[in-house]
Amino acid sequence: MPPLRTALLQSSGRPGSVAENLKILDEAAGRAAGAGAGLLVCPEMFLTGYAIGDDVPLLAEAADGPGARSVAEIAARHGIAVVYGYPERESHPERGDERSETGVRPAEVPQLPLGGAPRGRIFNSAQLIGPDGERLANYRKTHLFGCFEQQWFTPGEQPVVQAELGGIRIGMLICYDVEFPENVRAHALAGTDLLVVPTAQMHPFQFVAESLVPVRAFESQMYIAYVNRTGPEGEFEFVGLSCLAGPDGATRTRAGRGEELIVGEVDPALLSASREANPYLRGRRPGLYASLV
Amino acid sequence: MPPLRTALLQSSGRPGSVAENLKILDEAAGRAAGAGAGLLVCPEMFLTGYAIGDDVPLLAEAADGPGARSVAEIAARHGIAVVYGYPERESHPERGDERSETGVRPAEVPQLPLGGAPRGRIFNSAQLIGPDGERLANYRKTHLFGCFEQQWFTPGEQPVVQAELGGIRIGMLICYDVEFPENVRAHALAGTDLLVVPTAQMHPFQFVAESLVPVRAFESQMYIAYVNRTGPEGEFEFVGLSCLAGPDGATRTRAGRGEELIVGEVDPALLSASREANPYLRGRRPGLYASLV
Repeated sequence: MPPLRTALLQSSGRPGSVAENLKILDEAAGRAAGAGAGLLVCPEMFLTGYAIGDDVPLLAEAADGPGARSVAEIAARHGIAVVYGYPERESHPERGDERSETGVRPAEVPQLPLGGAPRGRIFNSAQLIGPDGERLANYRKTHLFGCFEQQWFTPGEQPVVQAELGGIRIGMLICYDVEFPENVRAHALAGTDLLVVPTAQMHPFQFVAESLVPVRAFESQMYIAYVNRTGPEGEFEFVGLSCLAGPDGATRTRAGRGEELIVGEVDPALLSASREANPYLRGRRPGLYASLV
Repeated sequence: MPPLRTALLQSSGRPGSVAENLKILDEAAGRAAGAGAGLLVCPEMFLTGYAIGDDVPLLAEAADGPGARSVAEIAARHGIAVVYGYPERESHPERGDERSETGVRPAEVPQLPLGGAPRGRIFNSAQLIGPDGERLANYRKTHLFGCFEQQWFTPGEQPVVQAELGGIRIGMLICYDVEFPENVRAHALAGTDLLVVPTAQMHPFQFVAESLVPVRAFESQMYIAYVNRTGPEGEFEFVGLSCLAGPDGATRTRAGRGEELIVGEVDPALLSASREANPYLRGRRPGLYASLV
């Protein structure tokens, strides 16, 4: 199986402007495809901006909404898969057709604080669009970080979301999720080869980008593409330092603090060899881990 | 609560000579106590040596055996708690009095390959002796590493073993155990403040000492004292790099590659502040982790 060249778009785009962010994504997709990449990963909430406060309900859209259609058009035009973060509005809460995901009855769906805004719960989501523009997978962040996220978002209930891309199993987590080893382990046990993690990693948590992410890749024997925002935005200061970490613990490529498009290889041969040399998944003793659940 | 000054004895001692190793321990305990330490941690299998091959069954002893009594005498004389690694022989396998630990019936206990050697299963263990010479806790390694260990040792069945020392909850793991996030998480959930990890960490796994151990301390919000052997021994090349890592991810003290006695502080005030700032344990969602067990 050939390696999957993976591009990481480290950028905060233009918070609040979906149109501008789609332009930046289009330009990055062109450059990434030109560099031979088959996958482009953008940060958390890239479509809209992260620190958008009261605009969250206004900018949130369905997983098949207009932003998704624009990303699909960009992906198909450049022939490259794209992962992007966005605020997702539940499509049809009145019909209760997502009950199986959360068990919440329609009557319990909270009203939004803004009188005229559309109804429905909002998730902090990431979506994978294939190189032909098809929506392959949509993940809702399960571990929300801090007051801002807990105010605006409902946590997802599906810990492992995956899709195949060129024979490589792609999984998705978002930012804080990856700091919990349980979440990454669940992906490893489900066969994730490349975990893509759109993030909004802020000062003073550089340790997560620099040390924790490569350790996660090593301990659970997978690649991790951790893709961050940059610079100041509202009350936050994003630290960049996006990276592609390998199952051997080595960082394949690492960005600095500013806007950057970096590219690295996800190599199935290295993955196999590393899993043979570091048999953590075979060495687990699930019978001893009962206190974790 | 005052900080617990903790000393890490990075040394391979004299493999095969219990008497020499007790002398080295005695001298280190004196120096550590003189430096104000209340706890001295030694590497995995420090009492006997690690790569002792066929001598494992000959040098293995009960948790209250002669080596333990000598360590207790040293601890009491210097007024310092000691953690040391050793090959533990099950005390009374014929009476089946450890059935509750493993569920193995006496009839199933394998005979040792050496005709004349004592019977009973052997564990790769670490014991904590208090500053008055009392045996406070004994841990049997649950995750054995590589062919050598799997040939000679039976895995332990008790994931979390703890004891109090000066108001600080001490937990124990051994080497490979700490590479599994599940084991450290189980300690965090059981309230471990300082995890002591006697180890025999070998080339080419420096990444574990340098990166993985501080990440474990951060993700599970505890101190970790990781104490390694040094230099060549049999087929192995131990890498040193012992460290005391804090719950903020910072390495408090780090040894080089050679023999060394290093000292660092375990500070309950920093532990409380870090747990407040990094609420990983409160943020867990055990209902999503079912696949791990």
